[in-house]
Amino acid sequence: MISSMANPQIKQLTALQTKTKTRQETGLFVVEGIKMVCEVPKAWLVKVYVSESFLKSCGQLAADFDGCLETVTDKIFKEISQTQTPQGILAVVRQTCYDIEQMLSKAHPAPLLLILESIQDPGNLGTMIRMAEGAGVDGIIMNKTTADIYNPKVVRSTMGSIFRVPFIYTAKLQETLAMLKSRGILLYAAHLQGEKWYFHENYRKPSAFLIGNEAHGLTDETAAMADTFVKIPMEGRVESLNAAIAATILMYEAKRQRMCD
Amino acid sequence: MISSMANPQIKQLTALQTKTKTRQETGLFVVEGIKMVCEVPKAWLVKVYVSESFLKSCGQLAADFDGCLETVTDKIFKEISQTQTPQGILAVVRQTCYDIEQMLSKAHPAPLLLILESIQDPGNLGTMIRMAEGAGVDGIIMNKTTADIYNPKVVRSTMGSIFRVPFIYTAKLQETLAMLKSRGILLYAAHLQGEKWYFHENYRKPSAFLIGNEAHGLTDETAAMADTFVKIPMEGRVESLNAAIAATILMYEAKRQRMCD
Repeated sequence: MISSMANPQIKQLTALQTKTKTRQETGLFVVEGIKMVCEVPKAWLVKVYVSESFLKSCGQLAADFDGCLETVTDKIFKEISQTQTPQGILAVVRQTCYDIEQMLSKAHPAPLLLILESIQDPGNLGTMIRMAEGAGVDGIIMNKTTADIYNPKVVRSTMGSIFRVPFIYTAKLQETLAMLKSRGILLYAAHLQGEKWYFHENYRKPSAFLIGNEAHGLTDETAAMADTFVKIPMEGRVESLNAAIAATILMYEAKRQRMCD
Repeated sequence: MISSMANPQIKQLTALQTKTKTRQETGLFVVEGIKMVCEVPKAWLVKVYVSESFLKSCGQLAADFDGCLETVTDKIFKEISQTQTPQGILAVVRQTCYDIEQMLSKAHPAPLLLILESIQDPGNLGTMIRMAEGAGVDGIIMNKTTADIYNPKVVRSTMGSIFRVPFIYTAKLQETLAMLKSRGILLYAAHLQGEKWYFHENYRKPSAFLIGNEAHGLTDETAAMADTFVKIPMEGRVESLNAAIAATILMYEAKRQRMCD
């Protein structure tokens, strides 16, 4: 049983939760809580840490992780937990590398993609991943200045979708978009200069939605890659919508159309 | 110029930003930032506080608030600001009391309402108010255990919609719902037991959407008041959607239908 904060494993756990760089260097990340840990695909699990109390009260569950289980004192668990009322279980998980070719080859005949440019808020990012899984997304493409998907706040907000939705980070967003266009995928951007209401487009075709940074929207270069600017109606004096809200409106309109066929 | 944290005005400002009770007792709240302060209806303004630097660089803007303007040192402003990079302006604003009869009398012939039960996250609440204004909501009804709309985080997330969307808090949610039903307003709840897809209902009629607590959804008593349970499709292994996301899907489907008439 680990009982010291000086233990190298505990030091690494803290670094994995607070430093993007450590996550990048090790290819690992941390998930916390019973529900999240149980959703991790077994092959991705590196180690499961439980508190002494957890082991006593949920020994059966802990036994599932035999072979990669490590116990820590309640005091240590409280230190390494990122939540205010820790459940007493967290796991170190291997990051998954997706490939855009693989993403497209596994997609529906008419792929549905979500493309994020420089989304900064971890809660927004996680919420979008969860919503996108619900809407039937085939994959999420992000530029490198989008928040780190393995940030604990993002992981938590995905409610497990992070284990199921394929995603890639691209260093060259415009090149990636050009490739998608060459494959017949139509790029839509919600834009104040849009001339058509978003619900007048046909998203039964291969479609990708471009969503930009919370404060600044899409860059001009990225917006210029869109095949169509669509408008989301806004009553009153609303000038823009939260990025996750705009993404939801578009993704679920695509889902609705695909179900009403 | 105010230069001491011991100044009673400064003490009240801090209390207004951190204590629901102070906001309730005084009937006041605080908004921060140039954009938000400029959106406050003039009649609701009690006092505008600017930093010394703000007064120097944006004197013209500050002059707009002549008569209720107060200057504080930059150091004090930094202390009273709730943001990491303060713009140097905030305002104390009078709370507005809406009446449900007035809300309904000013509504469209077919009212569109959003009803929130025990929403806890201030960001979620503010985002929903902003989204709802965009979708053309006539009013928002909340039960008493919903987060305080005057919490600075809620106010900020509304991006000004708080000044434009009528809202009420009701101590007796079920009674209020019964009254709405008696006026011919149909109550819809997104519910896992829903039998119809949400997009198969006709929201051109007077409609209200019931959205429940982030973790527990609607209480059984409130769900039982709904005329119709509707289902939101969820692909993959998504079990539920974030409350603001679910509200968006329903409100914007109503907006779409009302535009496509």
